[in-house]
Amino acid sequence: MAQLVNPDLARERSRVSFDVEKLTNVLYGGPDGVKRKRRIESLALTDPDYEHEDFNYLSREEQYANMLKKSLMAAKKAKELGLSGKDMDDYMTSVLDYRAIAMNLHCTMFTITLQQQGDERQRAKWLKLAENFSILGSYLQTEMGHGTVTGPGTGILQVQVQRFCNMVMILAFMISDGSLGLTVTHGVVMAQLYTQGQCMGPHMFIMQLRSLENHKPLPGITVGDIGPKYGCNDGDNGFVRFDQVRIPRDNMLMRFAQVAEDGTYSMVLDPRLTYGTMVNMRVQLTERSNTSLARAVTIAIRYSCVRRQSELTPGEPEPQILDYQTQQYKLFPHLAAAYGFWFTIQNLEAHYERVNSKLQEGDTSGLQELHALTAGLKAYTTLEAHQGIEECRLACGGHGYSHASGLVYLLTSQAVTVTGEGETTVMLLQLARYLVKCYAKSQAGAKLPSTVSYLQMVQSAAVSGGTTRDINNFDVLTKAYQHRAARLVKVATEGVRFKVTSEGQSEAEAWNNSLVSLVKCAEAHSQFFVVKTFVEAVRTVDADDSVRAVLNTLCQLYALHGICEHAGDFLQDGYLTGPDLQLARSEMCSLLSKVRSDAVPLVDAFDFPDQILQSVLGRYDGRVYEHLYEWAKKSPLNKSQVHESYYKYLQPFLQKNRAKL
Amino acid sequence: MAQLVNPDLARERSRVSFDVEKLTNVLYGGPDGVKRKRRIESLALTDPDYEHEDFNYLSREEQYANMLKKSLMAAKKAKELGLSGKDMDDYMTSVLDYRAIAMNLHCTMFTITLQQQGDERQRAKWLKLAENFSILGSYLQTEMGHGTVTGPGTGILQVQVQRFCNMVMILAFMISDGSLGLTVTHGVVMAQLYTQGQCMGPHMFIMQLRSLENHKPLPGITVGDIGPKYGCNDGDNGFVRFDQVRIPRDNMLMRFAQVAEDGTYSMVLDPRLTYGTMVNMRVQLTERSNTSLARAVTIAIRYSCVRRQSELTPGEPEPQILDYQTQQYKLFPHLAAAYGFWFTIQNLEAHYERVNSKLQEGDTSGLQELHALTAGLKAYTTLEAHQGIEECRLACGGHGYSHASGLVYLLTSQAVTVTGEGETTVMLLQLARYLVKCYAKSQAGAKLPSTVSYLQMVQSAAVSGGTTRDINNFDVLTKAYQHRAARLVKVATEGVRFKVTSEGQSEAEAWNNSLVSLVKCAEAHSQFFVVKTFVEAVRTVDADDSVRAVLNTLCQLYALHGICEHAGDFLQDGYLTGPDLQLARSEMCSLLSKVRSDAVPLVDAFDFPDQILQSVLGRYDGRVYEHLYEWAKKSPLNKSQVHESYYKYLQPFLQKNRAKL
Ligand SMILES: Cc1cc2nc3c(=O)[nH]c(=O)nc-3n(C[C@H](O)[C@H](O)[C@H](O)COP(=O)(O)OP(=O)(O)OC[C@H]3O[C@@H](n4cnc5c(N)ncnc54)[C@H](O)[C@@H]3O)c2cc1C
Ligand SMILES: Cc1cc2nc3c(=O)[nH]c(=O)nc-3n(C[C@H](O)[C@H](O)[C@H](O)COP(=O)(O)OP(=O)(O)OC[C@H]3O[C@@H](n4cnc5c(N)ncnc54)[C@H](O)[C@@H]3O)c2cc1C
Repeated sequence: MAQLVNPDLARERSRVSFDVEKLTNVLYGGPDGVKRKRRIESLALTDPDYEHEDFNYLSREEQYANMLKKSLMAAKKAKELGLSGKDMDDYMTSVLDYRAIAMNLHCTMFTITLQQQGDERQRAKWLKLAENFSILGSYLQTEMGHGTVTGPGTGILQVQVQRFCNMVMILAFMISDGSLGLTVTHGVVMAQLYTQGQCMGPHMFIMQLRSLENHKPLPGITVGDIGPKYGCNDGDNGFVRFDQVRIPRDNMLMRFAQVAEDGTYSMVLDPRLTYGTMVNMRVQLTERSNTSLARAVTIAIRYSCVRRQSELTPGEPEPQILDYQTQQYKLFPHLAAAYGFWFTIQNLEAHYERVNSKLQEGDTSGLQELHALTAGLKAYTTLEAHQGIEECRLACGGHGYSHASGLVYLLTSQAVTVTGEGETTVMLLQLARYLVKCYAKSQAGAKLPSTVSYLQMVQSAAVSGGTTRDINNFDVLTKAYQHRAARLVKVATEGVRFKVTSEGQSEAEAWNNSLVSLVKCAEAHSQFFVVKTFVEAVRTVDADDSVRAVLNTLCQLYALHGICEHAGDFLQDGYLTGPDLQLARSEMCSLLSKVRSDAVPLVDAFDFPDQILQSVLGRYDGRVYEHLYEWAKKSPLNKSQVHESYYKYLQPFLQKNRAKL
Repeated sequence: MAQLVNPDLARERSRVSFDVEKLTNVLYGGPDGVKRKRRIESLALTDPDYEHEDFNYLSREEQYANMLKKSLMAAKKAKELGLSGKDMDDYMTSVLDYRAIAMNLHCTMFTITLQQQGDERQRAKWLKLAENFSILGSYLQTEMGHGTVTGPGTGILQVQVQRFCNMVMILAFMISDGSLGLTVTHGVVMAQLYTQGQCMGPHMFIMQLRSLENHKPLPGITVGDIGPKYGCNDGDNGFVRFDQVRIPRDNMLMRFAQVAEDGTYSMVLDPRLTYGTMVNMRVQLTERSNTSLARAVTIAIRYSCVRRQSELTPGEPEPQILDYQTQQYKLFPHLAAAYGFWFTIQNLEAHYERVNSKLQEGDTSGLQELHALTAGLKAYTTLEAHQGIEECRLACGGHGYSHASGLVYLLTSQAVTVTGEGETTVMLLQLARYLVKCYAKSQAGAKLPSTVSYLQMVQSAAVSGGTTRDINNFDVLTKAYQHRAARLVKVATEGVRFKVTSEGQSEAEAWNNSLVSLVKCAEAHSQFFVVKTFVEAVRTVDADDSVRAVLNTLCQLYALHGICEHAGDFLQDGYLTGPDLQLARSEMCSLLSKVRSDAVPLVDAFDFPDQILQSVLGRYDGRVYEHLYEWAKKSPLNKSQVHESYYKYLQPFLQKNRAKL
């Protein structure tokens, strides 16, 4: 084996300072967790039924058909293998990657919504069909256009109770996930409920979209694919148009609110009990997004050890590009972030579990905090991951543009996590609203939940002590981030208040005129949470000293890099000083060279098999160039030495010109 | 007409504070310039021969064939129309956009290289063929892999003079532009010249790649397409492999250096005389990149006036999303940058013309400065534009993912300008090397060229005066940027020196260990140049007060936004204070609402016809939603109500499951 690995990569691995397998254990919940992960992966990756042509060479239509076939096959096999829960999820992802999986929303949002929001009768009717895959469903919440299409005044999709037992949907479009266009038979639809002349706000309805006999759209329904996209291009993300469609009153999911036959509306349960689903989806997207970042970093770091370019020391051979300080600066902070986010997501999942189990007993007390925290982390980490993946792609130079890199797929498929299930700014503003409320409460003496309790003690500035501060110390770092977040929450809150009290703006105006600073404080809070969690994880990690040492380095790098990037926030009130910042910068650079020697083992520890990475640049064996060449040769444009377009266009053109000479 | 425009957009235009046409005049060099631009555009856009299917629905192979056909047709028509120079360029771009144009490199790098580097005999032979399109050529400089493929020790592509008159190229790959794979017949190739056992460094050779009879690759040459890519996907970017290919000695371009029949090497002219070509290409890419940014901003701003979403004031109709402060914050700084870069590029082009005309007389004195300046601006503005386009895309929410937005094309096609013709970091480091050299010279008392003369007077810090400073004042702003750039050049230079003198590092080590701060100073220099140019342009613009007023606002926004983004750089040495920064932030927010009322006219002034924008979201008439729907319906996946894959995969799956119930 050894001689088949690129010697530069082999050398990288030979001088590792820690036990890679032990770090992998940390990431996947111990040796048993790693075993489980590998078993599921190998079930998927060694199954010859899933072998397929390179997706990069298929048309969009072929990709769709291919994904549909594989999705259905995987669902069937997973059942036969008796997989469920996380095993099932991991299996599906191993087979299908993050591509548009035909039953992705079916297995998550569609089924869970039926489960949580349907009453007993509805569950008996629909859930059984869904779980057995006798129907396939989608989740429809986002409307294509407001106002303009639906006509002035109608606002958004409406449902009206008419003549006691029917509902009429008026013209509207919805866009949705990668299965609405051609695949699904049903959908759960969010729409405004109007009854007895009153709007009761958004409610959930189950709609059959296509005939179970022949898959044709039902009368009044137009449904189709929305065309090519950035990311999820292999999916049939769809639009649907309801034109005076009547559905039985019974199709309103009635566990939380009911409409009687006479149109009387009644609330039955606290609708917040369903928030958990949404939160759970966001946590999942966050996790998916970070996995993509970790994969991108793996590819870029391995490639940067294989690629040699330019000159470092005159007369010496071209260096590995990872030896350039700038290349380290491009990649290592994202490596550190991928680790930091990994622990953060584990923390968030545990938090979710705690709140959710209380929720099952009707206790909604931890919900608001969880909701706000998740919104912020979803927004912050998916955007950071997105930018990180793009930076990894750019760091591979010209080859980062080739689909052979695997980075194009990671970039575009991950992009969807930034906007889907809650757009970044909207999410950050939800967190900001919570932070401002908490800050105000704490000013009034109330005790705050744990993740925001620090707002009680907005520190005064200038705790600084010139250059003597130990900027690598975790307590110093955590406190700096805490101070920054608390200060920015205070600034934003006071900004809103000032606009109301001193400038005479309405609450709404003042709020809108403060959005920029509100978003800023929400970002700062989210980053503080990551720093705190990362530090805590390093301190308590169940591993030997060598593993703890590399995690320690990564954690310092994440925190110091963030300080350098957002230096203004830390300097503005003098909390950190100019000399502190200078020290932070030079320490950060020292950390880069510290990470350098373990960089390849640190990405190896993520344990992504080549078949999952799907990257010629990021191959474990580093044999990049011969495989790039092999990959290129397979391009359909190379099927003949002279392309047919030569005879059609080029030959006549050139010959005519030559004749003129 | 009027009633056909979305009323929200019509209202935006009705309250404009300036004459849009006058601003357009400023951008395109006066009324005559605008007339010329529109005439060329309409030649291209009204010609029915160019009508074609929506590219988004074509396979890559169809796209390639389509582009080839159109490229050849456009070249022929342009000749018939008697177009040349800028008219010709604009015509080709209007027809072909920034897609992979079959003769893009042919018309630029290939022809210019022959022209500039061929001796008289070579020009007579090759140039005529090239200019008459009897041969088509590409430019090959970047190798696919170093070391690994070519075997240990060979480093990069080599040419050896053997037996006095032949050259042998050994195995190597090159990747190149969108026409190498299938289209071109020739290429100019950069390779290391070895003669009489000595390496003479990189030189240019002309290579015939394919037979002029049947277009087959010549013996020893493998050439082909490199497969799908991020950006330029419709082009046949290619690889070529030379296996012991012999070419006549005469194919070395001999204007600057010659090899005699006996292998004797001699330098004839200063090879720096050719630098102009490279610089010119970089300026062109920079311009193209900024045009893409301006288009993206046009799309996102128009769409943000059409889209209504969420709630601003309780009980009122949904606001246009451009009314959210965060939306303004996302888009307006990029609008300001697009204007700032526009003027910067005009300045750079004028600078280039001056240096180039001196160059024609053999005077290379201004070359180094121009080279450094261009490298920095190319790197800084293409990356800023890239990030700006992505932010515009994200600001359109879910619809920004659809190819119908036009933003996906802009993003991916512009991406290539970031890496092509000089990767960002490598470019910034070239500028940094120049800055450090200049700073050292000025310390030794030398006078510096104009763009760097400010390095002579690195200001000491703390000129600040609390909150009384007029942060909107152009002199204050320009000086702040100047101080930041000068300080960072000083810091970087001293950092390198310190590592050598106090830490005992070699020059090379010290340089590499300072790359992060070197890149930083090069960015600061480039941004300072933009600020200075923008301010100068606003001050001297030939337009009325209302036009000057909006440009004034944009210029302030660009400068203040940059200060807020890079606050740490300005605060670190106390040049700006915390209160200054606070003021800068609040002034920036005031500027956002000032830009708000003119936002649509400001993008209208770029004067991009709908056929060039190719965006459903950015349509001039704002009729987004009906056209989104029309667009989607045309997706090939919608050709039948029930897709064939239903019968193949879905029906059996669902039926089997239902049978089990
Ligand atoms: C669409 C497209 C079209 C192209 N067309 C052509 C063409 O027509 N002809 C042609 O010859 N080429 C072409 N290229 C290639 C292009 O010019 C190169 O990709 C580009 O110059 C970057 O070089 P590279 O790919 O070798 O990247 P690399 O140099 O390998 O860059 C990878 C990483 O290494 C770092 N790095 C490299 N050297 C240094 C250094 N000295 N100091 C610090 N960091 C360093 C970079 O910063 C980067 O992060 C094209 C590329 C693309 C994407
Ligand atoms: C690939 C993909 C799959 C999807 N799948 C589904 C699905 O299965 N089901 C489904 O229902 N939806 C789906 N969506 C839609 C997705 O959930 C929405 O696109 C997303 O929530 C953003 O909403 P929007 O598109 O309406 O954007 P908008 O809300 O229109 O956002 C546009 C801009 O307006 C700003 N903005 C909007 N409201 C505010 C506010 N209150 N304050 C400040 N700024 C604001 C935003 O910040 C953003 O910059 C999918 C989207 C994608 C891209």
